[in-house]
Amino acid sequence: MKYPSHLLKLVEVLRRLPGVGVKSAERFAFDLLTWPKEQLSEMAGVIDTIHDRLKSCIDCGCLAENSDCRFCLDERAISGVLCIVASPRDVFAIEATGEYRGLYHVLGGTLSPLEGIGPEKLHIDSLKNRLSSLILQEVIIAIDSTLEGDATSLYLKQEIEPLGIRVSRLAFGLPIGSSIDYVDGGTLARAFAGRRHF
Amino acid sequence: MKYPSHLLKLVEVLRRLPGVGVKSAERFAFDLLTWPKEQLSEMAGVIDTIHDRLKSCIDCGCLAENSDCRFCLDERAISGVLCIVASPRDVFAIEATGEYRGLYHVLGGTLSPLEGIGPEKLHIDSLKNRLSSLILQEVIIAIDSTLEGDATSLYLKQEIEPLGIRVSRLAFGLPIGSSIDYVDGGTLARAFAGRRHF
Repeated sequence: MKYPSHLLKLVEVLRRLPGVGVKSAERFAFDLLTWPKEQLSEMAGVIDTIHDRLKSCIDCGCLAENSDCRFCLDERAISGVLCIVASPRDVFAIEATGEYRGLYHVLGGTLSPLEGIGPEKLHIDSLKNRLSSLILQEVIIAIDSTLEGDATSLYLKQEIEPLGIRVSRLAFGLPIGSSIDYVDGGTLARAFAGRRHF
Repeated sequence: MKYPSHLLKLVEVLRRLPGVGVKSAERFAFDLLTWPKEQLSEMAGVIDTIHDRLKSCIDCGCLAENSDCRFCLDERAISGVLCIVASPRDVFAIEATGEYRGLYHVLGGTLSPLEGIGPEKLHIDSLKNRLSSLILQEVIIAIDSTLEGDATSLYLKQEIEPLGIRVSRLAFGLPIGSSIDYVDGGTLARAFAGRRHF
């Protein structure tokens, strides 16, 4: 016997969350059935107002709650360093380290010809505008080392270097605390290639 | 640096879903940020109307979309069999087998003195009313074999048997397709105790 139609609909929308299959969506749905009405309304309200409450900065693409972007401040611009990341989430991960205090630029994804994502689908035009208006000594590319990430990084390097700005990319190597015999071969190869005088 | 407050709120409500920790909630939240506004509104609407659209039958406790419960029909009542389950979800799992066509009664949980769930917190009163008004030959207890499930089953047996109704419980044993050397000891012991003439 099938579920009631509203339950089917609930399972369907929950399945759109990343990594959630039918079984997880059903588990979420049956759990939601037991929530009090106020909690359901609260969740619905928070979801429904995401785009009203959380906007992307039109310059850097970072998440901004109000009209002022916390990441486009003058004190960051004087550092002369711009860090390019794929998603707004990466900005928070980098900020959490406390190691970096420069500007950011969020691309909104990586180049992927197979999925039809070319430079025109990413925030490349706004990047070029900023590169010409800002006074920069260095651009740091902080993008994953995947097939798409490597292609995107190479593309950016070729676009930015002719402007006379130094382009660097985050180091790849052994994660801190890992043991060499457990690390994958690709990482180990990158760690050898990137070895430094000790 | 902390997330914007609305993002924190979003992560907080998503964490209330079963089995969802901070990392998963953050993953869901950042994915939701990329959804188009219509999809967010659709999800919010579905969640907000759960209690309006999906009601529990006041007699059996099964999920009902309209006022008529699909599980309280006369053709099921004439079977003279009532199956007691813990949650509305169990009903769909049993219906999917096609093996059972009798009535259901959803308890809404299992007895758990440690969590303060006594008989008064479960749909036991409505069960007693139905036991006296329906003409039943058999009550099947379809509740997990956990500590709480076993206690609830024993409690139900002691309440129902004095009424002259046969009480049975689902068989516990080897799952179909499993191999004996991989099955846990408790299941194997139940399979021995429940062995049948072959």
